[in-house]
Amino acid sequence: MNLPIFAAQFRTMNLAAVGSVAFDAIETPFGKTDKIVGGAGTYIALASSFFVTKQSLISVVGGDFPKEFLDLLAAKGVDTSGVEIKHNEKTFFWSGRYHTDMNSRDTLVTELNVLGEFQPIVPEHARSTDFLMLGNLSPSVQLSVIQQMKVRPKLIAMDTMNFWMDIALAELQETLKHIDVLIINDEEARQLSGVYSLRKAAAIIREMGPKILIIKKGEHGALLFHEANVFYAPALPLEEVFDPTGAGDTFAGGFMGYLAAASQIDFETMKRAIIAGSALASFCVEKFGTQRLLEINHNDLQKRMQEFVALSTFQLEA
Amino acid sequence: MNLPIFAAQFRTMNLAAVGSVAFDAIETPFGKTDKIVGGAGTYIALASSFFVTKQSLISVVGGDFPKEFLDLLAAKGVDTSGVEIKHNEKTFFWSGRYHTDMNSRDTLVTELNVLGEFQPIVPEHARSTDFLMLGNLSPSVQLSVIQQMKVRPKLIAMDTMNFWMDIALAELQETLKHIDVLIINDEEARQLSGVYSLRKAAAIIREMGPKILIIKKGEHGALLFHEANVFYAPALPLEEVFDPTGAGDTFAGGFMGYLAAASQIDFETMKRAIIAGSALASFCVEKFGTQRLLEINHNDLQKRMQEFVALSTFQLEA
Repeated sequence: MNLPIFAAQFRTMNLAAVGSVAFDAIETPFGKTDKIVGGAGTYIALASSFFVTKQSLISVVGGDFPKEFLDLLAAKGVDTSGVEIKHNEKTFFWSGRYHTDMNSRDTLVTELNVLGEFQPIVPEHARSTDFLMLGNLSPSVQLSVIQQMKVRPKLIAMDTMNFWMDIALAELQETLKHIDVLIINDEEARQLSGVYSLRKAAAIIREMGPKILIIKKGEHGALLFHEANVFYAPALPLEEVFDPTGAGDTFAGGFMGYLAAASQIDFETMKRAIIAGSALASFCVEKFGTQRLLEINHNDLQKRMQEFVALSTFQLEA
Repeated sequence: MNLPIFAAQFRTMNLAAVGSVAFDAIETPFGKTDKIVGGAGTYIALASSFFVTKQSLISVVGGDFPKEFLDLLAAKGVDTSGVEIKHNEKTFFWSGRYHTDMNSRDTLVTELNVLGEFQPIVPEHARSTDFLMLGNLSPSVQLSVIQQMKVRPKLIAMDTMNFWMDIALAELQETLKHIDVLIINDEEARQLSGVYSLRKAAAIIREMGPKILIIKKGEHGALLFHEANVFYAPALPLEEVFDPTGAGDTFAGGFMGYLAAASQIDFETMKRAIIAGSALASFCVEKFGTQRLLEINHNDLQKRMQEFVALSTFQLEA
């Protein structure tokens, strides 16, 4: 078996992502961590690095952020020249505690620090990127990144959350007009559309701008909507979800990295990209933080993607 | 396209089911019904009638139950000689109101009536059935049906619910030792196993007796566990769930009817059977009660099963 995605890793592609690079302190029923490196931008970049050998990360950290981690990203092909370092300030810090079901969590601490005034500056060489991933940030910050592009990317994807729907809906609606793919969870899709049926929600949200909608459902998989097409990606039933932090960003990064490497965005390729993102997310939750993503190799990923095939393949005819 | 299942409808197979035949009064955000015919046994029999032309239903009703409905079942190949009619008593009645999300409901009225003292008597000709479906009833009543079999059926499947785990766990555990397939929802699987991970829950439950476990997840599809194999069946994202009543029983009836018609129970056939059950359940919820199941024909079902193929098929290689 020779998956095109793993040949594709050797291509040089244009992918840029904006998102937080942060410290997290996490408590789950299985244990707790001190401050470890996290953040949407971190997970997106690590996930897409399985598919693209050159990508640009746009973010901001404080003087307290370990240079070693930026070096590690660089070694994985991530251009970190767009990660601003504010030496006299502190890195964004989030602390949370997951409930037993791992589907809900309490935020214990949020210290915005450098993220509070974050005005991303896209490096010159990333302003003509073909693929742009906007991690969860305020919609106006996301829009400012789009506006810095010299040419319109082939595909712009973004994440958002209910917080922005609550406090910045008008800005969010404006930003949605400029993107191609919205990646949100089922609760967010229901809030944004105002309807419960995800099929109806998808139609309403796709009228807001994004032609393509991906609804993440955690342990229940993900739905992809494009034109009249729907794809239901399964989630791998896991022995244990150890730490869900970063799973959604890993999914998004894997999805965009796969597409950037394939350099095409038809429905069949998007399906594969969702399986790639789902497979990476299924690794992400097996250990705390980024640990598992840093351990696995392409062979592990390839095997995991095959598990998704076995999990969901059936033939109506015997 | 020529699906074997639709050839199979002409076979005469051995399928027997026990379950309630009842009156329901249902309120959903879309409207409400007067007393309409419902009950697990009713939905199971209607669903399996799409695949088998001869089956036996074992149940009990009161003198108030419309003979016309029993005639309608008979016209669909359901032998109703095992449906006892207690002329001086009343049929089981349930009334419930669904919440906006359709995933939860309040029971407004439960009048057990004839079901309170239900001691099913399996007709002589059904005691050598190859396939036996035990609808949700007390575990000791389910066991009494198994004990009336003259030869051990090839496959015994059962449904149960958290109520029996709360008040009759020992009896439930005993009954589980005698069956092959347990069909429950995710919440019930977690309660029965005492663990949250469905993969771990499946391993624990399969140690209790049933070799095969199906976990229904409503709008999130269903999981099939057998030996080391797992299959994730998608659910069709619907424009609207009008009335979820009977969907689980329809799923179970479709699953068992399909297997009985195919007359084989390997993993690949079980996958197809789950798609058949899921397709029928997706029709069931489109209108109140049994209405939609009584409207559709084999062609509708065939098309719906093809939608499941389109929904979940992907290829890792371009």
